[in-house]
Amino acid sequence: MLRRTNQLSLASRLFSGAASRMMSAPLESSKLQIRSTTKPSTPKNNEDLGFGKTFTDHMLAVEWTQEKGWGAPEIKPYGNLSLDPSCAVFHYGFELFEGLKAYRTPDNKITMFRPDKNMERLNKSAARICLPTVDGEEVIKLMGKLIEQDKHLVPKGQGYALYLRPTMIGTTAALGVSAPDRALLFVIASPVGPYYKTGFKAVRLEATDYATRAWPGGCGDKKLGANYAPCVLPQKQAAERGYQQNLWLFGPEKYITEVGTMNVFFVFKDAKTGKKELVTAPLDGTILEGVTRDSILTLAEQNLSSDEWTISERYFSIKEVEERAAKGELVEAFGAGTAAVVSPIKEIGWNGKDINVPLQDGKQSGPLTETIAKWIADIQYGNVKHGNWSREVTGPL
Amino acid sequence: MLRRTNQLSLASRLFSGAASRMMSAPLESSKLQIRSTTKPSTPKNNEDLGFGKTFTDHMLAVEWTQEKGWGAPEIKPYGNLSLDPSCAVFHYGFELFEGLKAYRTPDNKITMFRPDKNMERLNKSAARICLPTVDGEEVIKLMGKLIEQDKHLVPKGQGYALYLRPTMIGTTAALGVSAPDRALLFVIASPVGPYYKTGFKAVRLEATDYATRAWPGGCGDKKLGANYAPCVLPQKQAAERGYQQNLWLFGPEKYITEVGTMNVFFVFKDAKTGKKELVTAPLDGTILEGVTRDSILTLAEQNLSSDEWTISERYFSIKEVEERAAKGELVEAFGAGTAAVVSPIKEIGWNGKDINVPLQDGKQSGPLTETIAKWIADIQYGNVKHGNWSREVTGPL
Repeated sequence: MLRRTNQLSLASRLFSGAASRMMSAPLESSKLQIRSTTKPSTPKNNEDLGFGKTFTDHMLAVEWTQEKGWGAPEIKPYGNLSLDPSCAVFHYGFELFEGLKAYRTPDNKITMFRPDKNMERLNKSAARICLPTVDGEEVIKLMGKLIEQDKHLVPKGQGYALYLRPTMIGTTAALGVSAPDRALLFVIASPVGPYYKTGFKAVRLEATDYATRAWPGGCGDKKLGANYAPCVLPQKQAAERGYQQNLWLFGPEKYITEVGTMNVFFVFKDAKTGKKELVTAPLDGTILEGVTRDSILTLAEQNLSSDEWTISERYFSIKEVEERAAKGELVEAFGAGTAAVVSPIKEIGWNGKDINVPLQDGKQSGPLTETIAKWIADIQYGNVKHGNWSREVTGPL
Repeated sequence: MLRRTNQLSLASRLFSGAASRMMSAPLESSKLQIRSTTKPSTPKNNEDLGFGKTFTDHMLAVEWTQEKGWGAPEIKPYGNLSLDPSCAVFHYGFELFEGLKAYRTPDNKITMFRPDKNMERLNKSAARICLPTVDGEEVIKLMGKLIEQDKHLVPKGQGYALYLRPTMIGTTAALGVSAPDRALLFVIASPVGPYYKTGFKAVRLEATDYATRAWPGGCGDKKLGANYAPCVLPQKQAAERGYQQNLWLFGPEKYITEVGTMNVFFVFKDAKTGKKELVTAPLDGTILEGVTRDSILTLAEQNLSSDEWTISERYFSIKEVEERAAKGELVEAFGAGTAAVVSPIKEIGWNGKDINVPLQDGKQSGPLTETIAKWIADIQYGNVKHGNWSREVTGPL
């Protein structure tokens, strides 16, 4: 009987803990404090922009404690984090991130592309590793303020953008493995150029079946640091054998899941009917819920004729790809993610052979790959309006 | 042909990269620089020692760059790390750690318990996520120097120890997902008390089959941060239902793999023959290669009579545990790890029922659990010598 009582009191302590967390302060953009740099930088030339190597003058930071909730958000000069070496983030992988871009439109507005989707995923990632969740709209407002603060560093021109990196880390300074009672949400911003400086460059992939990216019951569908470091060795090994990236397979069926750190799409064409299929792996808990993936599926459904096309989220294997390539039914393949938007594939090393993926004559992609890239760029750069996908930061900047 | 040439040149660049890494400076303890604190602390009372909440006056740190290799090791006052917010460790889980203890023997020597095993595993973890490896013996020497520096803080008394936490993080300040070209190895030290202050306290576990700790082709056998944050939610959910920890199951067979963040052992007794079996999951790539696990298997092989005992590293499922409990053949179970050494189990929640694990009358463990704890403590505290398991830090301190 005593034991049962102990259980109940343990449970009630935990539930009251949950209640006090609910009563603690939410993240409020109205509490923003801004401390500006005394040395604003001058923009780099577009041709000098890499990916995520240089950052804007300021960063956004908000601290959270289990006791008090979210503190006042702060925009401050970009600078080092000072953290106790026992902090949870250094030992137990309490870290998650997001990646999204802000674009300068031809009429000189700045917009973020679908930031609500990133905030939705940020909260799913946070819940999975017991970090605090946020009101996504408040963080979107704060990211807008950060962009405004450094607006002179948002590059101009098609293909150029400001990459935003919201990150949350557990900062409890103790070595017990438990849910952090302190966290830091920060956002840094990097002016970036086009992933492929001279148009598309199709890549060669090595299919990886000796290492596994994600597993049912794991966390491969969340944007956690935990999913990334273990991916680098297979990529490096593929590179040593002359492939630019690796293609992740899963299970005895050798299902195709992702490419490197992107979602992946294939296009098949039925030799008899001529009907084409755009296919990607289903969201079964092992696939990152990519914003670009979702955008492609949405636009394909809206723009492709159902007489000619089927759009599928289904399991498909490297064996199917190999067989259909042999029959001439493999017509395109591409990776999809925020950094490159779409990344065409020209060859897949598998089982000692290279499977060839067709490209258009004299081009580095298939026709649908090229079309999808244009659909998305047109929305991102404000040439075409699509629902509320483009979120304007403020008036003309 | 051009493509083939490019591949070769890519490969040769990579191999020359590997070669230059090999030629870069190794980690050398002889280069140690010591900067002592001006405010040495006074030891806490033993009864005030928690686990990993307070640290000694100094820490060890060594920087590595791909270009130059390992720099000069430094012992310096314990203090915050200052890191660029774009560092790989905050975004992509480039982090690994080790845990080991130093003990004060009755004749006032200080010894580390099997530090070579930790260094061996540290190097396996590092290789898995493309961080640099070390000469383990050099790091052991440096940890000895750190202990010597703070020797007044190594607690006295059975059950007390100095917990050492070697940690390596990737510190490249850029957002591309690739092998870090900068890293930091640091060691912090925490004076700790016995895990169970008043002797053993057997725990109730909830068997978890809705989440998966590790999988084939993943990295569950390495001590990476990536393996820890995702474990906390199932532990928290078990706690909300009145269980102190969770028991990890794997696959449709519901194999028992680990308990919380420890290895796990079960003892069965054949009802017909009376022969007992000590069993733990095999090292198939999904199980952490625990130093305590290895020590227990080694000591059991040396000390238990093969007439009475079988020692098995084999797959066994929660269903086998349930069936054998029903037949009265389940006689003991315990977790095994550096922090608690052994942690007895008294009940396992599974499938809506609690499986009872016997304890000795009036005690909080089974007889073998108690015996094993004593075997290991005797070696750790220098009452019994066992090969080179105890590594003396220096002369009398």
